[in-house]
Amino acid sequence: MEHITKIEHIGIAVKSLKTANEVYSKLLGYEHYKTEGVASEGVQTSFFKCGESKIELLEATNDDSPIAKFINKKGEGIHHIAFAVEDIVCEIERLKGEGFTVLNETPKKGADNKLVTFLHPKSAHGVLIELCQEIK
Amino acid sequence: MEHITKIEHIGIAVKSLKTANEVYSKLLGYEHYKTEGVASEGVQTSFFKCGESKIELLEATNDDSPIAKFINKKGEGIHHIAFAVEDIVCEIERLKGEGFTVLNETPKKGADNKLVTFLHPKSAHGVLIELCQEIK
Repeated sequence: MEHITKIEHIGIAVKSLKTANEVYSKLLGYEHYKTEGVASEGVQTSFFKCGESKIELLEATNDDSPIAKFINKKGEGIHHIAFAVEDIVCEIERLKGEGFTVLNETPKKGADNKLVTFLHPKSAHGVLIELCQEIK
Repeated sequence: MEHITKIEHIGIAVKSLKTANEVYSKLLGYEHYKTEGVASEGVQTSFFKCGESKIELLEATNDDSPIAKFINKKGEGIHHIAFAVEDIVCEIERLKGEGFTVLNETPKKGADNKLVTFLHPKSAHGVLIELCQEIK
């Protein structure tokens, strides 16, 4: 079985979804195909398709949002890489066994109809990694 | 014509290619398929396939390398996103017209048999964007 099948999306932390949508639609040559809020994470998101992957722009909706904290510390920029997996529960077990620090041992509901978890950046040379499985 | 066809790769700045190769092979469940030096950039790279995209790990080979400077300033982590384009010369002209700051107006030879250029992160909400076209 393939553990990770593709880059599902790249998450980019931005101050304003409105201006970032304009910039990324100029870059890619087409518009975002949806916006979606994730109240539990304090974010509003927009998605652009890009081949088999997506670009997810993330704007904080409150000061406690992880995206607000990220921008305060590091400025706007790439926040995480999300990999698609077929069985997130299996992958969480496998990656714990490989020594990765799994932030959500029970996957949670993310944007775009996904079950998600995150691996701590210290596990992966400074990269915040999301794993996501489509909810069928 | 599609301007950008897919995410070609994600570049990750690491201190040690050797230890990062071990971590990313555990994450993905398979080994990198090649290593390659780019002397002009002062980097040694390794590549993992991931769906239609790649993960590129980058280690600096000297203190003047952009990767050494990045790690000194920000620590290890995601350095850039590279998008595949079919005609890099056309895309450079198009994106200049859209207001992006193109760092290499004449594309240069990058790793993995590509002609590449970069867009300044200030143009793209903090994201260093590479465009790359396969050399035929």
